[in-house]
Amino acid sequence: MRQDEADQDSQALAGLLKGTPTIARNSSLQTSSEVINHTKPHPLQRSSRYIRKTGDAYLRRAESEHSLNQRGAAIADYTRAAVELHPNEPSLFLHGDRQLLHGPRGAGWYNTSLMSLVVVGSVAYDGVETPHGKVDRMLGGAATYISLAASYFTPVKIVAVVGEDFAREDMELLASRKIDVSGIETVAGGKTFFWAGVYSADMNDRTTLRTDLNVFANFNPKLPESYRSSRYLLLGNIQPALQKSVRHQMNGVEFTGGDTMNYWIQDFRGELLETIREWDFLLINDSEARMLSGCHNLRRAAQSVLEMGPKILVIKRGEYGAVLFTRDFHFMAPGYLLEDVFDPTGAGDCFAGGFMGYLSASGARLSDGGYDAAQLRKAVIYGSVMGSFCCEKFGVDRFRTLTREEIEARYQEFKSCTDF
Amino acid sequence: MRQDEADQDSQALAGLLKGTPTIARNSSLQTSSEVINHTKPHPLQRSSRYIRKTGDAYLRRAESEHSLNQRGAAIADYTRAAVELHPNEPSLFLHGDRQLLHGPRGAGWYNTSLMSLVVVGSVAYDGVETPHGKVDRMLGGAATYISLAASYFTPVKIVAVVGEDFAREDMELLASRKIDVSGIETVAGGKTFFWAGVYSADMNDRTTLRTDLNVFANFNPKLPESYRSSRYLLLGNIQPALQKSVRHQMNGVEFTGGDTMNYWIQDFRGELLETIREWDFLLINDSEARMLSGCHNLRRAAQSVLEMGPKILVIKRGEYGAVLFTRDFHFMAPGYLLEDVFDPTGAGDCFAGGFMGYLSASGARLSDGGYDAAQLRKAVIYGSVMGSFCCEKFGVDRFRTLTREEIEARYQEFKSCTDF
Repeated sequence: MRQDEADQDSQALAGLLKGTPTIARNSSLQTSSEVINHTKPHPLQRSSRYIRKTGDAYLRRAESEHSLNQRGAAIADYTRAAVELHPNEPSLFLHGDRQLLHGPRGAGWYNTSLMSLVVVGSVAYDGVETPHGKVDRMLGGAATYISLAASYFTPVKIVAVVGEDFAREDMELLASRKIDVSGIETVAGGKTFFWAGVYSADMNDRTTLRTDLNVFANFNPKLPESYRSSRYLLLGNIQPALQKSVRHQMNGVEFTGGDTMNYWIQDFRGELLETIREWDFLLINDSEARMLSGCHNLRRAAQSVLEMGPKILVIKRGEYGAVLFTRDFHFMAPGYLLEDVFDPTGAGDCFAGGFMGYLSASGARLSDGGYDAAQLRKAVIYGSVMGSFCCEKFGVDRFRTLTREEIEARYQEFKSCTDF
Repeated sequence: MRQDEADQDSQALAGLLKGTPTIARNSSLQTSSEVINHTKPHPLQRSSRYIRKTGDAYLRRAESEHSLNQRGAAIADYTRAAVELHPNEPSLFLHGDRQLLHGPRGAGWYNTSLMSLVVVGSVAYDGVETPHGKVDRMLGGAATYISLAASYFTPVKIVAVVGEDFAREDMELLASRKIDVSGIETVAGGKTFFWAGVYSADMNDRTTLRTDLNVFANFNPKLPESYRSSRYLLLGNIQPALQKSVRHQMNGVEFTGGDTMNYWIQDFRGELLETIREWDFLLINDSEARMLSGCHNLRRAAQSVLEMGPKILVIKRGEYGAVLFTRDFHFMAPGYLLEDVFDPTGAGDCFAGGFMGYLSASGARLSDGGYDAAQLRKAVIYGSVMGSFCCEKFGVDRFRTLTREEIEARYQEFKSCTDF
């Protein structure tokens, strides 16, 4: 796009922001602290018209059917139509750090910087062998999977460390999904975390063949200033003390949660308990929940974990789905029945990304007291949807082609497979 | 109840049958072959007013609020009210072999003899040890569990064989649930099938300690004449050739299905395939589905099994629930999360009983071509509900106190745990 086009577009959208208060169902939005003053596009935002479509055809029609100087108004019209027809679907337009969407307070402009999700964890290279094939080295790591999955829902800002060997095309894949990679530290002369493993015939078990921590051994996440005002924080599986330190670097975070593993549960129990006490949600698998609580029964285990601090617990059960627990209710999502599971690596992380990405995009708040049960249920399904896509190809390959339309279609498929 | 009261009641109900065609939404019921001519109560029907309530308070109110000679009309009123308020709930009145219910063709009188479910399989004594305790000898057997579970939905007629040691109180338990036990053969001088096993700490595995087939070794089921016109047939896990022979003893069965196990799949494959080719549904667990189809992937395994004949396949997954497959859709039900699992023995059979009991009560038909997807989905949930209750006490003990109200409450709990 030429600079004058961009300027015209900016003007049109700025006009829209001022001139069409009818877009905002709740006009208090227009005067709240969430109205943003700077309109400079994010450097990684490559979309030629600053528009990101997440739901239906209306937004694309606004782009294609209208001349440039009408586009702002057209987008307003189409958004209104989309919001009215799909009241539960966050419709997402990005313009700089602003988002025109149907958020928690009605349709209006939200500050994407506040709404964005900060993801902390490993970015790695993986060697994986499954009954369907073998890849010696490909992009992996929990933060990679989480960020890719979440990026379909909300702006993501990643914090990680890589070595000099980290490939330009892998950084570009993240950037192409509009993930803010300014928090990825590259260690000069260092090598990226490498993991290799092989899956059993039924892919329910895997054996680790090699773990080279490399630069990840000294990972001490530091949040760029531009990350700290984000409302949402998802902490991948790293040492609990580091998870705690990241949380304390945030200003006014609304919703924090993350993952952990048997190693921290067994050998760093005190540190872990101190860390998760401050979390809003914890996302672990069934054996971890049993280990953490000391109860075999899943319902009792969940009750016990909820007493440790988190208001929300999601227990992942692999191919059998996931269960979300709060003090008031629980919600069970089955695992999607794939015809071919090529590579389950990262499925749990993609669950986390879909879950938290959806909640971020929906403006979920716990600090208001209480949670929106319907929102949490949907988030579990979006998590399951993203986990299921992850398994369809090796590594992160599925995210090179996945569209928001496919996500919605699978969400509907979950509905039709479980509704009675 | 005195005889004159019974006569008055019969007259009132007979009057109702003739005089209030408005009850039947589809009046063709009144003239169909399903209208019954004999009104003699079943000998095992102990309810004092020939009324069996299965859903809400309206029916009890008809009993309590009206004098005897008004009762027939009152029941009609209350049924209409119940049917209008709970259109999806089969409301069941028994009067002799007639049932006043909201069935597949609207509210009206159905022939309970035609609608009843014939259950064939083992009636046994079990010795069971779980982490919660040990019972040396208690009532068990697949047909026992299936019949008890199904009896909450529809009239059940059981076919089995027992020895002289079979206790009178165990027969009475079955009879107290209005199960027709005239098809239970008692072998003079014989001993009842005995099985003993011990469960692992997590109760996902069990080890058989003892199997004494006793009279079950020569079980050759013969259906009493009064069983043969039933529309519904559920064949417990016995030799496939016997299952086949039972089906051929039925006249005009609408819906046949059953269970099998690894032994028959491996060593009697030809005989099994010949048998299930005639079935409408097959109900097996995941490892059996994999063994039968030769596919590890559940969805592919299901496709392969559906090509063997059954139009409906239900794959039980233990604590993880069940999946129903047809050629057109699949439906996933999660396992109910119990706080205490005392004894999982019979849970799969209770699933079968709830599933098939609900379908029988709903007048499900496959011979019409096609199936009612909504009905099948509900049946899976009722199956899961009954399986979950079974685990709450040792053996069949939960069925000594379980009420239809508890079943409905758990059905609603399933809804609230899965709805999004």
